[in-house]
Amino acid sequence: MKKQLGPKTMIMPMPALLVGTYGADDTPNAMTAAWTAVCCQKPVCVGVAVRHNRFTFQNLEDKKAFTLNVPRATQAAEVDYLGMVSGANEPNKVAKAGFDTEKGHKVDAPIITPCPINLECALKDKMELGSHTWFAGEVLEVHVDDTLVLENGTLNINKLDPIIYITAASKYHTLGDPVAQAYSIGNKFRNG
Amino acid sequence: MKKQLGPKTMIMPMPALLVGTYGADDTPNAMTAAWTAVCCQKPVCVGVAVRHNRFTFQNLEDKKAFTLNVPRATQAAEVDYLGMVSGANEPNKVAKAGFDTEKGHKVDAPIITPCPINLECALKDKMELGSHTWFAGEVLEVHVDDTLVLENGTLNINKLDPIIYITAASKYHTLGDPVAQAYSIGNKFRNG
Repeated sequence: MKKQLGPKTMIMPMPALLVGTYGADDTPNAMTAAWTAVCCQKPVCVGVAVRHNRFTFQNLEDKKAFTLNVPRATQAAEVDYLGMVSGANEPNKVAKAGFDTEKGHKVDAPIITPCPINLECALKDKMELGSHTWFAGEVLEVHVDDTLVLENGTLNINKLDPIIYITAASKYHTLGDPVAQAYSIGNKFRNG
Repeated sequence: MKKQLGPKTMIMPMPALLVGTYGADDTPNAMTAAWTAVCCQKPVCVGVAVRHNRFTFQNLEDKKAFTLNVPRATQAAEVDYLGMVSGANEPNKVAKAGFDTEKGHKVDAPIITPCPINLECALKDKMELGSHTWFAGEVLEVHVDDTLVLENGTLNINKLDPIIYITAASKYHTLGDPVAQAYSIGNKFRNG
């Protein structure tokens, strides 16, 4: 039996990523965002939903660039802090979290250096939806910690130790065990 | 040290959800999608990236409605199959996967009944990005398996057993252990 709960943001699981932008005075800022996704293959684009009153919102409008940074589960406290505190009230929030940054190679946005994966994105389009705007950026460069990159070009996911955000419980989780190989296990239904 | 890999779809982790639509003859279809996210709080909206040559693409254009269905890790094989096989070639793919459907209560799209969470969405806007279009839908109703809903209105996540998709390894994973409470563990940086 199902219960009807009305409109809810019930997608699970979600990532917990850091959106890097520069403020008007070029101070690096980072906002935690779970509402983010890949939104195009060619060109590679990613998107993020940003509430209008967020410090990051104005930075995106001004600089038309951002980074998406993939943290580790061991960085959960930093991720949580960067999601709770606004750059409007605490301009040095990134430094207070103990995170270094460097300027993007391709765009005017800060790479959050301690995060093992960083995507540099140039704003491509936006969609107004209500309380939030969906900002889509074209990914111009991806930086990955070289100890994660395997010889075949894939990543060592166990070593990455990605962080997973579960809305319904407001909790961060680690990644669990692999259960199946994609583009493989489903073949059993082909002649079913 | 970081390696530069060029533009890549390196967001991790991602969900693996099922997008439910009706075809022109009202046959239920389901497409697996990892490129999906919440994109607005008020009204509640979710989005999904759909490649132009997908069967689901035309269904979305025609019906202007879809469901997003959250499967369990135990449904990985079904999820994988529904992502590999097109409704254009196999109109009965949902039935072949062994999944029942029912018509949405609020929109003209099929609920994938065995999935424990189902979001009914009315198409609200779309953004053309290249190979893919980002379709945003307003969530009009959410159905949740009643055995998952706790008394305080949150969900029993362990019982849900969500499926996690890791692009870089093309693998489905379970959810791992909780590492921290959100809106809490980050407080230690406030006076740092």
